[in-house]
Amino acid sequence: MKQFISVHDVTDIDALVAKALAYKAEPFKDRTLGVGKRIGLLFLNPSLRTRLSTQIAAKNIGMEAIVFNVDKEGWALEFEEGAIMSGNTVEHVKDAAPILGNYFDILCIRTFPSLKNREDDYSELYITEFIKYCGVPVVSLESATLHPLQSLTDVITIKEQLNQNPLSGNPKPKVVLTWAPHVKALPQCVANSFSQWMNAWGEVDFVITHPEDYELAEQFTKGATITHNQDEALKNANFVYVKNWSTYKDYGKIYENDPGWMLTEKKLQLTNNAKVMHCLPVRRNVELSDEVLDGPNSIVTQEAANRVWAAQAVIASILEGL
Amino acid sequence: MKQFISVHDVTDIDALVAKALAYKAEPFKDRTLGVGKRIGLLFLNPSLRTRLSTQIAAKNIGMEAIVFNVDKEGWALEFEEGAIMSGNTVEHVKDAAPILGNYFDILCIRTFPSLKNREDDYSELYITEFIKYCGVPVVSLESATLHPLQSLTDVITIKEQLNQNPLSGNPKPKVVLTWAPHVKALPQCVANSFSQWMNAWGEVDFVITHPEDYELAEQFTKGATITHNQDEALKNANFVYVKNWSTYKDYGKIYENDPGWMLTEKKLQLTNNAKVMHCLPVRRNVELSDEVLDGPNSIVTQEAANRVWAAQAVIASILEGL
Amino acid sequence: MKQFISVHDVTDIDALVAKALAYKAEPFKDRTLGVGKRIGLLFLNPSLRTRLSTQIAAKNIGMEAIVFNVDKEGWALEFEEGAIMSGNTVEHVKDAAPILGNYFDILCIRTFPSLKNREDDYSELYITEFIKYCGVPVVSLESATLHPLQSLTDVITIKEQLNQNPLSGNPKPKVVLTWAPHVKALPQCVANSFSQWMNAWGEVDFVITHPEDYELAEQFTKGATITHNQDEALKNANFVYVKNWSTYKDYGKIYENDPGWMLTEKKLQLTNNAKVMHCLPVRRNVELSDEVLDGPNSIVTQEAANRVWAAQAVIASILEGL
Repeated sequence: MKQFISVHDVTDIDALVAKALAYKAEPFKDRTLGVGKRIGLLFLNPSLRTRLSTQIAAKNIGMEAIVFNVDKEGWALEFEEGAIMSGNTVEHVKDAAPILGNYFDILCIRTFPSLKNREDDYSELYITEFIKYCGVPVVSLESATLHPLQSLTDVITIKEQLNQNPLSGNPKPKVVLTWAPHVKALPQCVANSFSQWMNAWGEVDFVITHPEDYELAEQFTKGATITHNQDEALKNANFVYVKNWSTYKDYGKIYENDPGWMLTEKKLQLTNNAKVMHCLPVRRNVELSDEVLDGPNSIVTQEAANRVWAAQAVIASILEGL
Repeated sequence: MKQFISVHDVTDIDALVAKALAYKAEPFKDRTLGVGKRIGLLFLNPSLRTRLSTQIAAKNIGMEAIVFNVDKEGWALEFEEGAIMSGNTVEHVKDAAPILGNYFDILCIRTFPSLKNREDDYSELYITEFIKYCGVPVVSLESATLHPLQSLTDVITIKEQLNQNPLSGNPKPKVVLTWAPHVKALPQCVANSFSQWMNAWGEVDFVITHPEDYELAEQFTKGATITHNQDEALKNANFVYVKNWSTYKDYGKIYENDPGWMLTEKKLQLTNNAKVMHCLPVRRNVELSDEVLDGPNSIVTQEAANRVWAAQAVIASILEGL
Repeated sequence: MKQFISVHDVTDIDALVAKALAYKAEPFKDRTLGVGKRIGLLFLNPSLRTRLSTQIAAKNIGMEAIVFNVDKEGWALEFEEGAIMSGNTVEHVKDAAPILGNYFDILCIRTFPSLKNREDDYSELYITEFIKYCGVPVVSLESATLHPLQSLTDVITIKEQLNQNPLSGNPKPKVVLTWAPHVKALPQCVANSFSQWMNAWGEVDFVITHPEDYELAEQFTKGATITHNQDEALKNANFVYVKNWSTYKDYGKIYENDPGWMLTEKKLQLTNNAKVMHCLPVRRNVELSDEVLDGPNSIVTQEAANRVWAAQAVIASILEGL
């Protein structure tokens, strides 16, 4: 693997999932693979699970991981070509990225969207510039439009559940991505990325449901069934993925925020005893009710725990390709 | 040892002190004890000595230590059961703690009191919730009411001094905890915890002195001699522990702040050539005078250095019980 | 080597440069030199290259490196002797430094000048107090007036260029330090330190050029040719070091800030095909033009990459002298 920015960087999803589950069974089986190699974790935005799981994954295969919180420990980067840097940005990505590429064998980057200008965000300028100038493989720790390590984790988690409890009858599980209310305007990354991976994986019957005006970008959702009727969508679902996102068309807004879209125990009863997923952090009793999160159908903790094995499979695959 | 939240988690104080002093003599004697294990250091509040000493202690026994500054690198956690999370808190401890327990073999947490609501602080809600939900042993790096790693260090330091210079005559050294002035309202943690450990240890004649209105919670002080007369308390003392705290009864206030309570050379002459202790950081010439801190009776540096061995003994004991 | 604060701590510059280049050729050749030893990296100000390169250098020789951002994670330190600490400073260097010296075998410190009071800054109070009280070797990661790891890197980079492309004819390369415009008042550290090292090294024909009123302190520049005529200075130069600094005499000011002093392609043509250096971060199109930075004469990335080998040579030399 040459980089890990989206599902397009993966040639065989099932093989990558199998690799991750093999690491889960035996975390230290490649403990010397990364010895003498360094991975840099660059955060332009805060992180808990992503930072810790990637750090742990790297260490499990013998790599030295160094965290750098650009937003807190460093300074503002400039991304515009030809900028006259007489303002607040202190260093151009053209100067910072090659150095980081020199210090590290793999560079991981988290950079959130502004949610102000759709074209800018969807051009993925920041991570693209890092890739262009750093000269080493780049792993996305969530970018302006996608969160591939989360999505790989989600596929791993679904696969693991199916391995443990195979579905009788219908060979393809029904997976529903449902919009949920929130108090802040959030990126579309997780929803975009989950859609992209479900469609690319092709092993599921994939349905997306959200209120009007919350359509996601078609480049990611194409192939999925899309409906504004949440109850209809939930019927017979085997997995429900709950997530809020802000509007894509009239970009970065909160339109309708109907509490009726919160996933409750009552709504869960519409499903086929579905497992409930969420990338975390979750706003309890806003996105999902306590009863669902604390109930037997929630697999959010197992899902977050799988972040380690997703990261480990990706880093190992990149190391093997160096 | 199953956790380290207060002196009640320790079955044999003397054995733990001996273990710490054995590590001081030979820091790397258990260098492989923690190999393949990870310890998470979670800071909801800032730290210098506690962070560095715990990090070093873990590494000395081969454990990987990962620091996470929740307040700076992460986001606000919710601790209230059933909260509708439509405010500023981003993630509930019920969701964060199990993940952290999954990522780490031991979880260490620092969480200061608000000093606004006594019942809340003294319920130790934050650390209790982490213990309840994380599923792995928890070590307090200072909580709302106690600072057990500091107190263990203090016992180690007193014991070490007594080993080096045994007292002639009186078999029990007189240890005085004296309140000192400060410019800010501080927690009662260090004073509570020191009192708790001195009483539990039982090897000393323990006296607490403070101005009126600064009474500590009886659950921690019971068994100690308490007086408002500092000069009387200092008489014949072998160890003087200097510390400020805010009021407990009318909670979190600064009442009298008489500079006359500062420990000076003149006051030190009332003692039996007492060694002077402080947990640091210390406000010079407010809590203690320069002449005392820079003089031969101060053992504050040795005390802070012993933080490493206290942490190492605790982490090793927990690892041995896993 | 007992410490690394300025060029005066180095007995043989050429030998130190050779040591660094040997590490560049074989990064892990001394991989066990620092095993069981710890280096503390203390930042009172932000850092990217310095932090990462020093951290990497330490790990390359087997040392455990621990970063502590005093400004972000800790608290304000007091440096005044005899201070009555009733203000905002939380801990005196007299108390913090000995503990840090106890926790670490080598202590590295970054501390910027205030640019408000020249005497205070040029007394190097902060780093001097750390040296006085910590009891272990101190390495400057940039202090109020100097940046020796950068300057050593610069000598390494010039030497490396000369090794690769020996000058025909004139045995001494012409090295020009030129002032450049900026938007902020910056320290004189890099310029002071580069001047000090060029003069001490003695292997170059060293010229400094800047507008009137930007004279540097004579203690560092003595021995160099100084001119206000940039074009004249650039003539036949083999290396041009571009850097902004604020005024020294009327301390910490921006006087003239003529954009004409920016290093452009046109100005570069005055030189003898000079290599262009800068310590980074650089304000593009303010200090240097894009065309120069992106052109074949810029060696700023190689220069920054060499920071690792400079740090590794220094840390190794100190370890060997312990």
